[in-house]
Amino acid sequence: MNLLVVGSVALDSVKTPFGSADDVLGGSATYFSVSASYFTDVCMVGVVGEDFREEYIDILKERNIDIDGIEKRKGRTFRWKGEYGYDLNEAHTLDTQLNVFADFNPKIPEKYKECRYVFLANIDPDLQREILNQMKRPELIACDTMNFWIERKYESLKKTMEQVDIVIINEGEVRELAREPNLVKAAQKILSWGPKRLIAKRGEYGAIMFSDSAIFSAPAYPLESVYDPTGAGDSFAGGFMGYISNVNNINESTIRQAIIFGSTMASFNVEDFSLNRLRNLSLREIEDRFKEFKRLTHFDDLT
Amino acid sequence: MNLLVVGSVALDSVKTPFGSADDVLGGSATYFSVSASYFTDVCMVGVVGEDFREEYIDILKERNIDIDGIEKRKGRTFRWKGEYGYDLNEAHTLDTQLNVFADFNPKIPEKYKECRYVFLANIDPDLQREILNQMKRPELIACDTMNFWIERKYESLKKTMEQVDIVIINEGEVRELAREPNLVKAAQKILSWGPKRLIAKRGEYGAIMFSDSAIFSAPAYPLESVYDPTGAGDSFAGGFMGYISNVNNINESTIRQAIIFGSTMASFNVEDFSLNRLRNLSLREIEDRFKEFKRLTHFDDLT
Repeated sequence: MNLLVVGSVALDSVKTPFGSADDVLGGSATYFSVSASYFTDVCMVGVVGEDFREEYIDILKERNIDIDGIEKRKGRTFRWKGEYGYDLNEAHTLDTQLNVFADFNPKIPEKYKECRYVFLANIDPDLQREILNQMKRPELIACDTMNFWIERKYESLKKTMEQVDIVIINEGEVRELAREPNLVKAAQKILSWGPKRLIAKRGEYGAIMFSDSAIFSAPAYPLESVYDPTGAGDSFAGGFMGYISNVNNINESTIRQAIIFGSTMASFNVEDFSLNRLRNLSLREIEDRFKEFKRLTHFDDLT
Repeated sequence: MNLLVVGSVALDSVKTPFGSADDVLGGSATYFSVSASYFTDVCMVGVVGEDFREEYIDILKERNIDIDGIEKRKGRTFRWKGEYGYDLNEAHTLDTQLNVFADFNPKIPEKYKECRYVFLANIDPDLQREILNQMKRPELIACDTMNFWIERKYESLKKTMEQVDIVIINEGEVRELAREPNLVKAAQKILSWGPKRLIAKRGEYGAIMFSDSAIFSAPAYPLESVYDPTGAGDSFAGGFMGYISNVNNINESTIRQAIIFGSTMASFNVEDFSLNRLRNLSLREIEDRFKEFKRLTHFDDLT
């Protein structure tokens, strides 16, 4: 028990210009957990319906993820249906069925409460704070959110932000949350609410991290074949939090390496549908791609 | 005589959410030259009309740019009028008056023909090749272009690409030119036509360089205040080519540093209208920002 994630477990139907997949395993907590599982012990809190098949459970078990926190309830699992065009940057949601996720009221199992690292995936900000109330003394808390909550629960979301160490959201959401078009100013505003760091995810342009004392910019890995961007953001967060949990410190050097590991995991994730690529990686492949990021970004100092 | 640029000299009228400027000095060759002038001796070929005031000439002279290649013709100077919204990524052209630029037929002065480094700014690809025919034996040739020529002179443009070493264009133009939505594949296709390197400019996301053996990704400098993006791409090219001309070699290390100097100059340029910021820099400011780029992108290797 080291890293806790609370979020959605879903069955996704996705169409991209390169193919499609129906009723495949997805959800923020799922992508996060599988990604983080290469670095540390992960425990997962979520809810599924009666239609959640054994093969999905097996995918999580194969990665040694603790799934005792996944509640099975009467009804159907959360379902999302979406489509991407050629630019692959924006998902067009065709259908959302919350099903059992509509009444999600996460109960943290006793044995999870000592987790030192916590990731609050994109759920109602009220619930995000209720989860924190159940935890003992986490070392580091990170959270995600989305435009839906920014538009409907702004004040609640601000309260959650006050209680977390790192906010990891999309670039557009940074601007929307801060109500400020300039990204640097928007980031400063959000940091003034309490978080020590803000990471803006920029899709094919990578990620940029802001703190009071530094900015760190990381590219995305340039891929010849991007098949399905679903889950890239959660895979990023999983690699990021997984690596930090593994190293068990939160200095600037670790945070920056963690962002590169996050980018690494996101880059693998988009190479195939669902978790098909992400669940079948070797540590060697992950380290090799980390090193690729070094070659991709390195330039010599002035002499 | 070291670095030659051939391109437009213009009078711009620009409106952004942060202010406006009328009939101010602009044009691709102008931004390029002022930017490059911090690194090397620049000579400039272009055309202006009778309305081109002495104060504009003085701006170029102050930067020690050789302007003997600027022809003064009867009529008015090329005029561009544009507007930017809050995202500042895309210019909306309100009016273009080619004026004397319509019949631009660049004659390279004899003393310029020995220049070792050549930048063909965004002009008709037929003219770009005519310029090369007039040059002796340049060490390195780079070129820009735009959607206008991609759509109207595709075959001519491909011929120009065959004769240059480095193509420096916007990311969207890479995709349009290669007729391929994936950037990596698009870059490979353009490289297969002849150029050794392709640099895709990505606005606020920086630049990415492709060669047969490497990819290099550079962020843009995160700015709190961006006033006017006009000329950013040409300032980038000017810093890039200027530094290479100064160091006088074209190995991978130099190219990468040159991309950072290009990004540095572009970042200064957007801090004010016209050349107001770009023409008033110190070498110390430029080097300091280069070093900022190092802090912005550095992460430690795995131990």
